[in-house]
Amino acid sequence: MEKTRPSPLILPTILLFLLLLSSFSSFALGERRREPCKHLVLYFHDILYNGRNLANSTSAIVGVPAWGNRTILADLKHFGDVVVFDDPITLDNNLHSEPVGRAQGLYLWDSKEFYTAWLAFSFVLNSTDHKGTINFMGADPTTVKTRDISVVGGTGDFFMARGVATLMADAYEGTVYFRLKVDIKIYDCY
Amino acid sequence: MEKTRPSPLILPTILLFLLLLSSFSSFALGERRREPCKHLVLYFHDILYNGRNLANSTSAIVGVPAWGNRTILADLKHFGDVVVFDDPITLDNNLHSEPVGRAQGLYLWDSKEFYTAWLAFSFVLNSTDHKGTINFMGADPTTVKTRDISVVGGTGDFFMARGVATLMADAYEGTVYFRLKVDIKIYDCY
Amino acid sequence: MEKTRPSPLILPTILLFLLLLSSFSSFALGERRREPCKHLVLYFHDILYNGRNLANSTSAIVGVPAWGNRTILADLKHFGDVVVFDDPITLDNNLHSEPVGRAQGLYLWDSKEFYTAWLAFSFVLNSTDHKGTINFMGADPTTVKTRDISVVGGTGDFFMARGVATLMADAYEGTVYFRLKVDIKIYDCY
Repeated sequence: MEKTRPSPLILPTILLFLLLLSSFSSFALGERRREPCKHLVLYFHDILYNGRNLANSTSAIVGVPAWGNRTILADLKHFGDVVVFDDPITLDNNLHSEPVGRAQGLYLWDSKEFYTAWLAFSFVLNSTDHKGTINFMGADPTTVKTRDISVVGGTGDFFMARGVATLMADAYEGTVYFRLKVDIKIYDCY
Repeated sequence: MEKTRPSPLILPTILLFLLLLSSFSSFALGERRREPCKHLVLYFHDILYNGRNLANSTSAIVGVPAWGNRTILADLKHFGDVVVFDDPITLDNNLHSEPVGRAQGLYLWDSKEFYTAWLAFSFVLNSTDHKGTINFMGADPTTVKTRDISVVGGTGDFFMARGVATLMADAYEGTVYFRLKVDIKIYDCY
Repeated sequence: MEKTRPSPLILPTILLFLLLLSSFSSFALGERRREPCKHLVLYFHDILYNGRNLANSTSAIVGVPAWGNRTILADLKHFGDVVVFDDPITLDNNLHSEPVGRAQGLYLWDSKEFYTAWLAFSFVLNSTDHKGTINFMGADPTTVKTRDISVVGGTGDFFMARGVATLMADAYEGTVYFRLKVDIKIYDCY
């Protein structure tokens, strides 16, 4: 009798201790897991207004440097051009697929020496799978194969989202059309 | 005697287990509470420069598409217009109430088909109640009754704030004046 | 015998309770520590294009109000001027030191009454010490000695960073050159 009595207490105590340790290692010691709690891969398509494609363009140059104009990207690696966009988002790389939302915001070209851009925009998603917005900001050195920008917030299905999005040029045609693949990893879910 | 002895140990063990479970359910399993830890309702007032109201205007068109100009919002749902603003913030819906701060940043109109905007701005609050800044970003489909944008950061009284702000058009007069009600819910407090 | 038996269980129980309490005080009760987990002090240098310094300028006016132009900052406290920049970042206050990265994005002047700006930009760091990006947003009332803006995200070495950056004017020459000291405190590390 004496020997078996403590066991019903020792067992939960050990269990508690292990649970607590795992809780501590992930929270108190700052070693949070790096596995995304949400993961989406989406494409968006940008057709820049060039003076002749008003009907099907999805973006327009609205800020230019002193040497620029609004119907063609500026010399010096497009430095200073600011573009406002409202681009369709699709699940695959086909411009004509049914859009699941719109990418809306601005990008700008910010170097005279390299083709490098900077973006601040929202994904406004409205499909059977996802309703809500994801907000992004970051640098986009377009000649690098993959570029990471920040997911700085979200609403709806993406309430309080934070994470990293990896951009990849999926296609471009001259300076008028490009398609970006966006690999969105949310690490902070609510 | 034998029957009552374990009780002083079983009680704290059960208590611990319940505490641990609640700790786990809120942190490890990602089910954090959705109650705001800070909540503010504020109004801001935007008077757009139209070429004749320099003295009392609080915003100005500074970027335009090829078909636009800086003293009137552009055709095609104002697509491409970029507006810089420095708008008074008030506690109620009266433009002439004592301001508690300024809303500063930019918004832009980003669709040719719908009146939809995109904003990135700061609330710079300086009153007896609040000193600090709140930084916002998000899409604003203006024809929808309420629109959620992200609180992406804060300083001062709003140190490290994160949350969601719900925008509501509270009034507008033509294209020159509008008033937004902003319901700010901070879920991440320090 | 009866008296000593509970002790091997009471000890871990007390230990557990204390650990749990400390876990609770830091997470459940919202009292997170305010000590930065990463801390950097950097400088960046902005040389504004004025129509005559194309080769060595690092920024350009790209949006202007109706009364502005792109080669000189506008009247009325530069209200409405939008500047795109690609500024070298250095470890000390010397413009000619080896850059450790580039500050890229935009700032705008947003008041007719005060010299106050608003910024949204990225630090793109690429040195032996740091590889990655830090994304910033916030109001910059330039006449105040120190101004706090938000670190809204990061990538690479600054994966998921959040924090506050304190800006200080370190030098300026007319309206063409300024140097900002940026004291970056990251409170959310992964």
